[in-house]
This record gives sequence, C-alpha cells and structure tokens, in this order.
Amino acid sequence: MRTGVWLMGVRGSVATTSIVGALALRAGLTGPTGCVTELPELRGPALPAFTDLVVGGHDVAATPLTKRAEALAAAGVLPGRLVDALTDELAGVEEALRPAPVGGTQAERAAAVVHDLTDFRRRHGLDRVVVVNVSATEPAAVPHPAHLDPTALRDALAGPEEVLPASSLYAYAAFTAGCPYVDFTPSTGARLPALAALAAERGLPYAGNDGKTGETLVKSVLAPMFAMRHLAVRSWSGVNLLGGGDGATLAEPAANAAKVSSKQRVLAETLGYVPQGGTRIEHVEELGDFKTAWDLVTFAGFLGTGMRMEFTWHGCDSALAAPLVLDLARLTAAAHAAGRRGPLAELAFFFKDPLDARSHGLAEQWVTLRDFVAELHFGSADDQAR
Amino acid sequence: MRTGVWLMGVRGSVATTSIVGALALRAGLTGPTGCVTELPELRGPALPAFTDLVVGGHDVAATPLTKRAEALAAAGVLPGRLVDALTDELAGVEEALRPAPVGGTQAERAAAVVHDLTDFRRRHGLDRVVVVNVSATEPAAVPHPAHLDPTALRDALAGPEEVLPASSLYAYAAFTAGCPYVDFTPSTGARLPALAALAAERGLPYAGNDGKTGETLVKSVLAPMFAMRHLAVRSWSGVNLLGGGDGATLAEPAANAAKVSSKQRVLAETLGYVPQGGTRIEHVEELGDFKTAWDLVTFAGFLGTGMRMEFTWHGCDSALAAPLVLDLARLTAAAHAAGRRGPLAELAFFFKDPLDARSHGLAEQWVTLRDFVAELHFGSADDQAR
Amino acid sequence: MRTGVWLMGVRGSVATTSIVGALALRAGLTGPTGCVTELPELRGPALPAFTDLVVGGHDVAATPLTKRAEALAAAGVLPGRLVDALTDELAGVEEALRPAPVGGTQAERAAAVVHDLTDFRRRHGLDRVVVVNVSATEPAAVPHPAHLDPTALRDALAGPEEVLPASSLYAYAAFTAGCPYVDFTPSTGARLPALAALAAERGLPYAGNDGKTGETLVKSVLAPMFAMRHLAVRSWSGVNLLGGGDGATLAEPAANAAKVSSKQRVLAETLGYVPQGGTRIEHVEELGDFKTAWDLVTFAGFLGTGMRMEFTWHGCDSALAAPLVLDLARLTAAAHAAGRRGPLAELAFFFKDPLDARSHGLAEQWVTLRDFVAELHFGSADDQAR
Amino acid sequence: MRTGVWLMGVRGSVATTSIVGALALRAGLTGPTGCVTELPELRGPALPAFTDLVVGGHDVAATPLTKRAEALAAAGVLPGRLVDALTDELAGVEEALRPAPVGGTQAERAAAVVHDLTDFRRRHGLDRVVVVNVSATEPAAVPHPAHLDPTALRDALAGPEEVLPASSLYAYAAFTAGCPYVDFTPSTGARLPALAALAAERGLPYAGNDGKTGETLVKSVLAPMFAMRHLAVRSWSGVNLLGGGDGATLAEPAANAAKVSSKQRVLAETLGYVPQGGTRIEHVEELGDFKTAWDLVTFAGFLGTGMRMEFTWHGCDSALAAPLVLDLARLTAAAHAAGRRGPLAELAFFFKDPLDARSHGLAEQWVTLRDFVAELHFGSADDQAR
Ligand SMILES: NC(=O)c1ccc[n+]([C@@H]2O[C@H](COP(=O)([O-])OP(=O)(O)OC[C@H]3O[C@@H](n4cnc5c(N)ncnc54)[C@H](O)[C@@H]3O)[C@@H](O)[C@H]2O)c1
Ligand SMILES: NC(=O)c1ccc[n+]([C@@H]2O[C@H](COP(=O)([O-])OP(=O)(O)OC[C@H]3O[C@@H](n4cnc5c(N)ncnc54)[C@H](O)[C@@H]3O)[C@@H](O)[C@H]2O)c1
Ligand SMILES: NC(=O)c1ccc[n+]([C@@H]2O[C@H](COP(=O)([O-])OP(=O)(O)OC[C@H]3O[C@@H](n4cnc5c(N)ncnc54)[C@H](O)[C@@H]3O)[C@@H](O)[C@H]2O)c1
Ligand SMILES: NC(=O)c1ccc[n+]([C@@H]2O[C@H](COP(=O)([O-])OP(=O)(O)OC[C@H]3O[C@@H](n4cnc5c(N)ncnc54)[C@H](O)[C@@H]3O)[C@@H](O)[C@H]2O)c1
Ligand code: NA
Ligand code: NA
Repeated sequence: MRTGVWLMGVRGSVATTSIVGALALRAGLTGPTGCVTELPELRGPALPAFTDLVVGGHDVAATPLTKRAEALAAAGVLPGRLVDALTDELAGVEEALRPAPVGGTQAERAAAVVHDLTDFRRRHGLDRVVVVNVSATEPAAVPHPAHLDPTALRDALAGPEEVLPASSLYAYAAFTAGCPYVDFTPSTGARLPALAALAAERGLPYAGNDGKTGETLVKSVLAPMFAMRHLAVRSWSGVNLLGGGDGATLAEPAANAAKVSSKQRVLAETLGYVPQGGTRIEHVEELGDFKTAWDLVTFAGFLGTGMRMEFTWHGCDSALAAPLVLDLARLTAAAHAAGRRGPLAELAFFFKDPLDARSHGLAEQWVTLRDFVAELHFGSADDQAR
Repeated sequence: MRTGVWLMGVRGSVATTSIVGALALRAGLTGPTGCVTELPELRGPALPAFTDLVVGGHDVAATPLTKRAEALAAAGVLPGRLVDALTDELAGVEEALRPAPVGGTQAERAAAVVHDLTDFRRRHGLDRVVVVNVSATEPAAVPHPAHLDPTALRDALAGPEEVLPASSLYAYAAFTAGCPYVDFTPSTGARLPALAALAAERGLPYAGNDGKTGETLVKSVLAPMFAMRHLAVRSWSGVNLLGGGDGATLAEPAANAAKVSSKQRVLAETLGYVPQGGTRIEHVEELGDFKTAWDLVTFAGFLGTGMRMEFTWHGCDSALAAPLVLDLARLTAAAHAAGRRGPLAELAFFFKDPLDARSHGLAEQWVTLRDFVAELHFGSADDQAR
Repeated sequence: MRTGVWLMGVRGSVATTSIVGALALRAGLTGPTGCVTELPELRGPALPAFTDLVVGGHDVAATPLTKRAEALAAAGVLPGRLVDALTDELAGVEEALRPAPVGGTQAERAAAVVHDLTDFRRRHGLDRVVVVNVSATEPAAVPHPAHLDPTALRDALAGPEEVLPASSLYAYAAFTAGCPYVDFTPSTGARLPALAALAAERGLPYAGNDGKTGETLVKSVLAPMFAMRHLAVRSWSGVNLLGGGDGATLAEPAANAAKVSSKQRVLAETLGYVPQGGTRIEHVEELGDFKTAWDLVTFAGFLGTGMRMEFTWHGCDSALAAPLVLDLARLTAAAHAAGRRGPLAELAFFFKDPLDARSHGLAEQWVTLRDFVAELHFGSADDQAR
Repeated sequence: MRTGVWLMGVRGSVATTSIVGALALRAGLTGPTGCVTELPELRGPALPAFTDLVVGGHDVAATPLTKRAEALAAAGVLPGRLVDALTDELAGVEEALRPAPVGGTQAERAAAVVHDLTDFRRRHGLDRVVVVNVSATEPAAVPHPAHLDPTALRDALAGPEEVLPASSLYAYAAFTAGCPYVDFTPSTGARLPALAALAAERGLPYAGNDGKTGETLVKSVLAPMFAMRHLAVRSWSGVNLLGGGDGATLAEPAANAAKVSSKQRVLAETLGYVPQGGTRIEHVEELGDFKTAWDLVTFAGFLGTGMRMEFTWHGCDSALAAPLVLDLARLTAAAHAAGRRGPLAELAFFFKDPLDARSHGLAEQWVTLRDFVAELHFGSADDQAR
C-alpha cells in the first residue's frame, strides 16, 4: 500500500523532524521510539509500512530542507549524524516539495494545490495521499455564510474575498483531490460545515485537531486521576515557555487564544467542572525547540483538606510531534482504505481538541484507539463472526 | 445492612481521620470528597450506607481518640470544628475500642481478638464486620514452614514461638471469626499460603496491600502515559519526605525497604522494563502529616532526543487515606454479602501492591473496579440475562 | 521614644497582620521571627521598643479589625489563638482608626488627614508618627505639571482636579503634618519632585517603594550569584499566582504593570544586562493569601554549555510583609530622631524598587543597612572618634 | 609569568574540560563565561594570562585526552567543534601527561611525582607550577600518628604502610617540589598538621576544599537570605542525582559521606543552627555529567506561619567546575608570587568546605575575594600609602 504523506508547512520544525525520522526509519538507522503505531498493541497488516511512505508538501518558505534539518541538529532536536547519513534521501524529498500557491483567487490557489496533489500521486504511483497540516497556527477564522454549504463555498472562493483561512483552503483542496486530511494544528482546518459535507460527499475521512504533545498530554492523565479519586480540583494554572517558530507565532495574541482554549478543554471535559486558573503561552526565544511547561494544581481532599501538586515538563516539541504525524498518516490511510469517511473520532488519543471526542481522558482514548486499530487489522467482531 | 468496621491501629492518624470522617458523613457535616464509592459511577444499593457503619478497633497505644483528633486538627489534617461538633460521637466510638492483646502465646492473642470481634458483632447487631489493618508498617516477615499450611499454622501458634507478624495474626483472627480482612499497609497481612487457605475454607474475601495515596498514585497514571506514547523512560528517581508516626516508622530501614519495594512495582509492571533510579523515604519530623514527594523522570523520544519531567506532590497522607479506608470497608462488605471469597483482585485500584492484580495502570484498574461494583449492585450480565 | 505608626490601608491584610503582630510582641505572646530589626546585628538603643509603638490608620473600607483578623486566622495567616487573646487590645486600636477622607477637593482631604495625624500624635503624647502606606496598589500616576513644584502643587490641590494619586496625597499630608513617610507599595507615593522638595523643606526622611517579600527577594540573591560566578543568564521567566485582596487589585492590568516593572529591575541592576523572559502576576482567588511564584532561569556556563534552574516559592505574603512594616516604622522613626532627611537609600534592603539605591543585591543592601543602623545606635565613626 | 598547572586526575571530566577550555581561551575560540577572574572586579596585572598557562598532570587511567574530550562533546558538556579545532593543541598537552606512579613505598611514589613536577617546570621554563587535585573523591582518611608531624611523616612514608591517602601524598609531593597546592575535591589533601607544617616551612600557599559548583552554591546565597530576614528555617532536605565518573565514585558510601558532610556545613555556619533534613547523593548513570539537585526548604515567618520553597538545579558539573580550576590556578600562582604562605582563606568563595573560612555566605566571601585580589594587583592599602 504505497502511501503519500503531503505536509502543509513542510519546511517547519515538525515537518522536517517527521521527514528525517521517516527516512531514518526506512533506512533502519533509528528505532520507532515515540511511534504509537509501532507498539505491540497497534502493530499489524492494515498500516502502510514505513518503506511504503512517500513524502511531499507545500510551504510558503523556501529554506532548503537540509538547512532546516541541520539547524534542528544544532539545536539538539535531531542527531546530526542522521542528517549527514540521509543527505541523498533529503535531496530526493526536496524535489517533491512545492511552493504554497500565492496570489489569484482562493479558487485558483485551491486548484493549484489539487494539481500538485494529483501530480504527486500519479508520479509516485501512490494508492492514496494523506494531507497533514503542520503549518503555522492561524488566528481563529472569521465566520462567513459560505462556511455552511459546499455550493456556496465553491462560489465564494471564485470571488475576490479571502473566504477561508489557509488551513481550511488546504482541507478543501485535499477533499477535492480525493485525499484524506489530518489537522495537527489548532487552526480551523476541516471544522466547517461546508467541508464536513464535502468530505462526506467524497467518502473521505479526516482527523484533528492540534497534536497533544506536552502539558495537555500530562493533563489528560492527571485530571482523570483526580476525578477517579473524587478529589476536588480547586485551581489549575499553567505557563508554557517556548521559543522556536511555533513560539513566535503563538506569541501573537490571536494565535495564542486559539491554542490556549484548545489546551483548557481537557479539564472541563474530564473533571465535569472548570477549576480556577488559566494557561499562558509565553515566547522565550532562547528556549528554542525545547518547551518548559509548569503547572500548579491545588485540590481538596476528605474533609476539605487542601493539597497541591506541581509539575514541570521539559520536552522537545518537534521530537514529540513528529512520530505522531507519521502515526496519523498511517492510521488515516488505513481508515481510508477500509472505507471510513467523516471525522475519525477514534483518533482522539492524538489531539488536544479532538473531533467528536467521546472522552478527553487519555486512557479511555487509548482503549478506543486500540479497538479501532484492531478492527482495521482484523475486521470488526461482526466481520470476524461472519 | 449494618456493617462493622474494625480498625487495627485504631488510634493512628489514618484510623482517627477515618473515624472522624465517617461520623461527620453520618451526621451530614461534610461531603464525600475523596470517597470513591460516592462517585456517580460507583454509587448504588449494594454498598452499606455511611449511617450503617459502626466503628471499633484495637491499638497497642492508649491515647484517647479525641486527643488524637485534636492533634490532627492542630496539624491542619482535620477541621477543628468537626472535632468539637462530634465530641459525643467520638466518646461513643472510644467505648468500642479495645487494647491490642499482648503477652501469652500467639494462639491466645488470636483468641482474644476473635473474642473482641465476635462480641462487637453481637453487641451492635451487625450483619458482618470487616477488619481493616491500618497499624504501623512492620519489617518484612521472616519465612516459617507453618506459613504454608493452616493446620501447621494452628499448631505453631499454640507454641511459644512468634510465628506470625502482627498483621498476619490479625488476618488469622479475622478469618477465624468469620470476618473479611483488608490490609491498607505494606505488611504481610493475609499474604501467606496458610491464610489464603483459611480464607478459602471459611468463604471469606480479603483485599490489599498498601493504600495508594500519593507518589505511587501519580506514577500509576504517568507511567502508562509514557508507555502509551511509546516514549522510553530512562530514569525515574523519587524522594518522599514525611513526618508523622508513619514517617518515623518508615525511617527504620526494614520498614522502609518493605514500603519502597511496594512503591516501585508500578514502573516495572506498566512500562515492561525497569528504568534507572530509585525511591527514597526520608523522615523529616517537622513536615508532620503533610508529605512532599518529588520525582524526576528522564525519557527519550523520537530519534533518541532526551527530555525530562519532574513533579512535586504535597499531600496530606491521612486525608488521602481515610476515605479509601471507608471505601474498602464498604466494598469488601458488599463483596462478602455477594458471596465472594479469596483475594479481591478487582480492588487493585486502591493499592500500591495489589493482590493478584492484572494491571498496575490506574485507568485499567478503574474500569475493573467500575465493572465489579456494577455487578455487586445489579448482578452480572449473566444474572441479568436470566 | 513613644512612636506612632499610622497605616494607610489599615484594614487590609498586611496592616491587620502588622497590628496583631505588634500587639502580640508587646504582650510577649510571640517571638520576633521575621523582624529584621530584632537580629543581633541590628538590635540596639536607637530603635523604639515594641512597647513604645502606638498604631492608628486610615482606610476606605469599614470592616472591623477583629473581623479581618479572624478571616486571616481562618486562612492560616495568623494563629487564631492570638486573635482571641488580643480581643481587648484590638478593640483599643479600632478606636484609633479613622475613615479615609472622601469628597471635597484634594486640599480638603489632605487637611483632614493632617488633622487626624496631629490629633493622633497629641492624644497619645507621641514623639513622632511614621506614616506607612499599605493600601491597595494604584495604577501608574498620570503626569501633571504641578508634580514638579511644591507651590504649584499646593495651588493645584485646591482646585477641582484630581492632581495626585491617593498615595502621593498621603505623602503630601504626612510631610505637611511633620511626619516621615514610608511607602510599602509600588504606587507613586513620595516619588514626585514636589514632594521631595516638601520633605527637604520640612526636614523629613522617607522610604520606599514596594516591600520585597517573595520572588523578588529570592531574585535579589540569585541574580548576584550568577553575576559573581560570571555565568550568563539567558532567560529568566516567572509567574506569580496569588489570591487575596492584593491579588484582585493586581489582576487589573494597570496595577499589574506597575508591580511587574518593579519586580524586574533587580535583574537589570544586578546582572548588568536584561535577560529574555518576563514576569506575570495572575489572580487565582482560591490561593488566598498564600502566593506561589515559579521562576525558570536558563544560563550558559563555560564554553557555552546550557543549564537551568527553577524555583517555587510558596509564601504567605502578609506574614512576610508585616514584620517589615514594623521594622520600617522603627528604622524611619530612629532616622527622623537622628535628624535624617530626604530619601533613606540605606533601607533598600526592604524594597523591590528602592529609592536612590546603590545596589539591588541583597547582601550589599544588608551591609549598608547594618552600617546605617550601627550609626543610629552608636553615632558615626567620626562621632565616635570625637 | 609563565605558570604551570599540574592536574592530578588529568584525564577526568573536570580536568579535560579545564584543558579544552584553557586551550580555547588561549586560541581566542571562546569567551571567559564562568571564569570569575575575568570579571571586571577581579581582572588585573597580578594574574598570569591564559596564554601564560601550561598544563600537565597525572592520572591512574590512560585514556587519551582527545578521546575523553570527544566523549564529553558527545554528552553535550563541550562543543564538538572546539575539540576538532584543538586537535594539535590537545596532542601537545597529551605529551606533558604522566602516569600516576604506582607500586613501591609511598616515599618512592612521592619522589616520582616530585621528579615529574620538577621536570615539567624545567622543561617548559615555568616560573612556578600550581598542583590542582581533581582526581576521584576518596573515602575519609584513617587517622595515623605520623599525620601530626613532618618528620614522623617522612619516616613513615619510607615504610611499607599506606600512611597517606593519595590526595595527601600529592600535597606532600607538591610541597616537597616547592609547588603551591589546590584541592578541588572533598578528599583530605593538605588538611593534616604535618602537611600544614611542611607548607609553612617551604613558604607555600595552598587552598581547598571541594569546589562549590551546584546545590551548595545556591545554598550559600539562600541560607544567608533566610538569616538576614530573620526567617526560621525548619527543614532543608536535598537530593542530588548524578551520573558520570564522579557520580559512580560518590555512590560508594564512604565517598558519599565525605561529600555530604562537606555540603551541609554551609547551613549550620550561615544560619547559626542546624535545621532538620539531610542531603542525599544518588548515582543515576543515565544523567551523565548533567546533575539534577532538588531541595525543599520549609520555614516559619512572623507569628509562626509556615511556608516553603523548593528549587531544582540542572547543571553540568564539569562545565561549572572547569573555569574555577583555572581561576584557582591563576589566583594561587599570584598569591605565591606575592609571597603568601599557608591556607588561602580568602579563596573560600570557591569551596564547599573552605579552609579557615570566616564566612560561608557567598556574598561575604565575594567581598573578601575582591579585596584580596585588589591587594594582589595593587598592593595593600599600607603598601599604597608607602
Ligand atoms: N510541536 C508540537 O508539539 C505541536 C503540537 C501541536 C500542534 N503543533 C502545531 O504544528 C504546527 C507546526 O509547528 P512547528 O513547530 O513546526 O512550527 P514552525 O513555525 O517551525 O513551522 C511552520 C511552517 O509552516 C509554514 N507556513 C506558514 N504558513 C503557511 C501556509 N499558509 N502554507 C504553507 N506553509 C505555511 C512556515 O513557513 C513554516 O515552515 C503549528 O501550528 C503548531 O501549533 C505543534
Ligand atoms: N496515610 C497514607 O497515605 C497511607 C498510605 C498507605 C499505607 N499507609 C499505612 O497505614 C498505616 C497507618 O499509618 P498512620 O499514618 O495512621 O500511622 P500511625 O503511626 O499514625 O498509626 C499507626 C497506629 O498503629 C498502632 N499500632 C502499632 N503496632 C500495632 C499493633 N501491633 N497492633 C495494633 N496497633 C498497632 C500504633 O499505636 C498507632 O496508633 C501505616 O502502616 C502506613 O504505612 C498509610
Ligand atoms: N503582602 C506583601 O507581601 C506585599 C509586598 C509588597 C507590597 N505590598 C503592597 O501592600 C499593599 C497592601 O497589600 P494587602 O495584601 O494588605 O492588600 P489588601 O487589599 O488586603 O489591603 C489594602 C487595603 O487598602 C485599603 N485602601 C484601598 N484604597 C485606599 C485608599 N485610597 N485609602 C486608604 N485605604 C485604601 C483597602 O480598603 C484595603 O483595606 C498593596 O499595595 C501591596 O501591593 C504587599
Ligand atoms: N564537577 C564538579 O562540579 C565538582 C565539584 C566539586 C568537586 N569535584 C571533584 O572533582 C573531582 C573530579 O571530578 P570528575 O567529575 O572529573 O571525576 P572523574 O571521575 O571524571 O575524574 C577523576 C579522574 O581521577 C583519576 N584518578 C582516580 N584516582 C586517581 C589517583 N589516585 N591519582 C591520579 N588520578 C586519579 C581517574 O582516573 C579519573 O580520570 C572529584 O573528586 C569531584 O568530587 C567536582
Ligand atoms: Na518544583
Ligand atoms: Na520543580
């Protein structure tokens, strides 16, 4: 099952780390640490092998991939020896990259993306191409009547107005080209009624939003712990200090707001109430790709006794995100092959703000994921009975 | 269903907090924060109501309960106003307390305990009495051939030798008196073949060991998080600083060793390998009943990138333990009423070192517990089908 | 030397804690922990004894002092038994409190304050009255031409305009009444040329600004440590989570800005450069008077190797501030008695944003303070030589 | 002033980092971050320039210096590019290294060291050679009567007994060869009456013990902060997690004890009392040269209110130690040139367990150091007056 992975924002930190990692896995130069789909509970025949993945993508920037990879190596995100060993392979990927279309109407830009996707699929003889958005976080989208209906949307895109944010235009183009779509960012992406209808029409699955890699990951196990123990969380305050490209983007108040609200949902959903306190994101350039998050939780136990917990998470965001990008591409490809369409709620495990999620607790999300993957590999219990 | 709760170590911090809490709940003076059995998912008809609980117990110390309660209030473990409001009720419980038997052979001491239990059950017209061990942690037991067989044990106890540690003698007496037994401590308790055989013979359930209230509770959600994300934990080091009676006991190397080994199992069991590092318990008298635990976790992600997490837990041990003691008494009573016998593996959720546990991950233990309690309330799926 | 201490904001947390503490010290019910002037290095004849202090003050609120003290006891700031033991004494202080004047021109309000101060001094037969501002933090003052000159100021105050922020009006009234003035807050207070001139004219000393009690205190020893070791601090980021009245005030952006800038000066001053990162103050009501500050410092050592330090400070702000209020009143009274006038740069040890400070490092400030106090007690080296 | 720096333990992490750093500074490839003697307050004519330093040393191990340097680069302690750029210079130093003498009597081994030192001085035309001990920490020395007197010592060394630990034998050899001696380790070194007498006899200065680089450095500013604020420290507990060669050595109980006692003195000395709690050192191999120390301080403020502070220090020990080794060599050389003899108490700033220290507070030690260095540069106030 030859599978294309088309990354929007392909020259960014997450994308570059994903690409180096995919190449290194293919070449047997590294192990699958961090790849959820390589756990014994999830491994199996339905997923495309790493050797079956072909990577391409769009970016508004033009920095050569190798240069980005070297910068990440210098920053300690990647081992430098991998970049050296994969020079040729990186040059090969570089050829598959295309500039993100600019200028013209949004319809024209969408058509250019569709063309690039189709060309990529054909040229590499791919069974399918999964589009994954890992481009910079956008401000929250401005509502527009054309967001509600595919026909109205098609018409509006042909006009001079900027109807869709870039992430949604990419989802539109992906669906139009017959490609499943994954949104790893907090941007709007496929989350508009018109796009949901389009995906349904074309029989395409999609997944999102906002990869869960650090503080929210920890929250998604700690908040259920407090809930299961019937402890009353009184306040939960957090601060995220990060540099890097993503840090700079998130320092913009609008992008920050999108991200922060995506980070807080897990508390309300798993506790059943909203404790005091909030989450902050601060840009500190010198921290680079290594993010430090600090959270303070105050809670009351039996007879009202006050207690507290704090944690510091010091993670490399791109190294945490990259294997999940590969996981999501493999899983979404398999879901597509199995005929799944619409939002993949079963992939909630991977996201801060999961589509249609039944639970925000990581352990429940894991059980859902495991069962979903088992079905992809071996068919449903019903299928097996037959 | 009038249910006796007989506490071994009834004048200790955990016991006193449990008693004040049970009385306060009965009197409607407090809410059920921290009581797992009062969560919507677990509440139901099979569990004895708080108003159906009657408390008694043994202790080697003689400090009046009220005095212990006042000391705990001064230390911030309990609200002082509760102790004031419950003076009469506490005096009532005081009457039900008995000195732990000393002197004579172990058989004679066991008989004295059996007598006290039987007397308590009869005097208060109780349907059953659950014995819960919350006495001081013992050193690991010295192996003895009589531990293997009930008949040999009975004979050996009649001799002059100290065959059993106190916790196991209490389990023996409980079973002999027809009482289920719960061990909240890391001591040996019912974990001897001879006692397992005795419980089976008498058709009695039992549960343990070592209530999971702080650092290990957190580990039981964080370690599965790392495992589910396929992150490689390289080291996990912890230190527990605590004062109080339990802190003083655990400063003894032998008791310390028992506790520490009980605290480390969760890592090996949930990760599938043993990371570097260890756990320390240090007695710092001035910290009193508030324990501070600090853990450092270093881990590797994709392509070997090193990352780290640390957390500080500042909890009041007795306030965390007391509601669980009440939960365990209610659940074990209901299991007994439902005819369950032998080790209650379904109560693993509550313990650091659970009997016959299938999982050490908190979320899986929760699912097991929830299903178990649903069965107690409404019968098994099979029963319901009938 | 009978000394009056007149507190602006006398019903606030800091003031109430100062009052209970002063009464408790006078009555011998507590020790001088936290009182810098009771250290062996500073104790001596020039300072008024605790038994010589008489407290009064203004507030815009009318909550009885005893009620505030009880609330602070319930919150764990004060021992409840002290409040009980000092009921009569607190009632005595209550009689000396006056409502902060409202309405009329600022000149009229200033006159009312002058009247209250003069009356207090006369009625209690005091040698002097030190006015200490511990009222709520104000937004930064709006510049006004009359701030530059005492005569212009006097004229402007008589008009309908609000020329001065409350803190500066209090400084004006204090100086007019012949009283030294201490500003424990980040508000403008005496920091206007017109007020400096007035103090000089009347021969009065004054001190400020913004008591140094928590995160900044720690910074004032850690930043010099990095400097003395020639380590390059790359970023220093902090967050302060606090509830209480002060927390609510500081949640207002304008007051927050005043406080934050006062907190950051220490880095620039002791390091000689400004590292990346900033400080945040967040209001989390449930934390009450206990503040949690968390700071992350990243730094480079030899050959550029990156390292990091983080600290969590969990302090009770009012308990940290109150003894310093008493220290400042005693020291300023002694300075006045010794004929000192103008800004007391030697008291920089106590402040986040010290007037005319030569150093922001705590240790150097300590040496300056010690020498200053020695001179108050025993005269200058010159005096002694004579 | 051509100055030799002879390192005992020259192939260890600290030594290798010092050597690479010295070469890089000489070659202008790096800046003096971390070098205290390069601060504006200390710089001056009396200190040998980096270009005047020549390095040699002994080690029991034979691993080539370049190999050690490469390992340190791989571990992130050193920039790899420096090692590459300095290949030739490192080879040059390699030639000046000698195996630590083994076998024979201690007198014979001492003579071999003396020979190597003399040869080094002569061959490189050095004005003087400072011997710095950076070899592995030893267990506490066993007392011996010959430790009290130089003559007895000389006799005993000629016998078959192991009279001195290696560090003291090195001090003995250094003094015999007319070299000043610095002990950067917690080992015994020059701290024996017989060696003090020998140094006095030969007119040689010496300094030590145990470089202050991490947790103790922080303690040496935080403990005075609590003292200056009259806050009562109730407990101070710490844990040090470290890998590397030093970590492995310190995992030995005897070496651990030597180090821990050296780490705790600062509290007793600066607070005037010993708070509860202790310090632990744990070996966690995977942490390598980066050490994580965590400390919890509980303290009482005004009216007994309890508060707490915790800090985490994540430092690279060798990167912190290496510039201090260079500082100490330069300072001790200048002191020797100025005719100083005996213990250099003025260098207390650099040590956990300083010889003859008047103060353990870092700020006071800084003032002492600054004045001492000013005197070295410009002569004493008396000299200047003359
Ligand atoms: N790293 C994580 O842990 C993590 C977790 C969750 C979500 N995310 C999200 O992933 C995204 C990527 O993060 P990153 O660290 O790689 O950021 P980055 O800034 O390094 O990379 C973003 C890339 O997107 C490109 N880009 C910007 N606008 C574009 C457009 N309209 N079309 C195509 N390309 C565009 C940029 O040129 C850049 O190369 C962000 O939205 C981030 O919020 C990251
Ligand atoms: N508090 C927690 O979070 C927690 C968690 C897990 C386990 N535990 C365990 O619970 C137990 C009780 O803890 P605590 O804090 O109440 O300790 P504690 O020291 O306050 O109380 C122990 C009581 O046991 C009594 N005792 C000692 N030996 C006895 C004997 N042979 N027979 C009867 N009574 C005896 C003592 O007199 C004392 O009153 C300990 O074993 C502890 O390890 C506590
Ligand atoms: N607690 C600390 O550690 C600390 C440290 C530095 C500075 N401070 C400053 O001390 C001040 C007091 O802090 P707090 O915690 O007691 O606050 P608080 O809110 O408890 O008390 C402030 C009091 O000032 C009164 N007030 C407000 N405006 C007034 C006015 N115009 N005239 C007279 N009274 C007025 C209020 O009614 C209230 O009683 C704040 O400005 C705070 O920033 C406190
Ligand atoms: N790194 C720091 O921050 C720091 C701070 C204070 C003290 N120290 C002390 O510095 C010393 C060196 O630390 P390190 O990290 O370089 O350790 P390391 O283990 O890397 O190096 C020690 C070296 O000493 C050599 N050695 C052992 N015994 C010897 C002997 N008898 N003669 C000659 N050489 C011998 C070893 O072969 C090794 O090369 C230790 O004693 C340590 O406690 C280090
Ligand atoms: Na912390
Ligand atoms: Na921390």
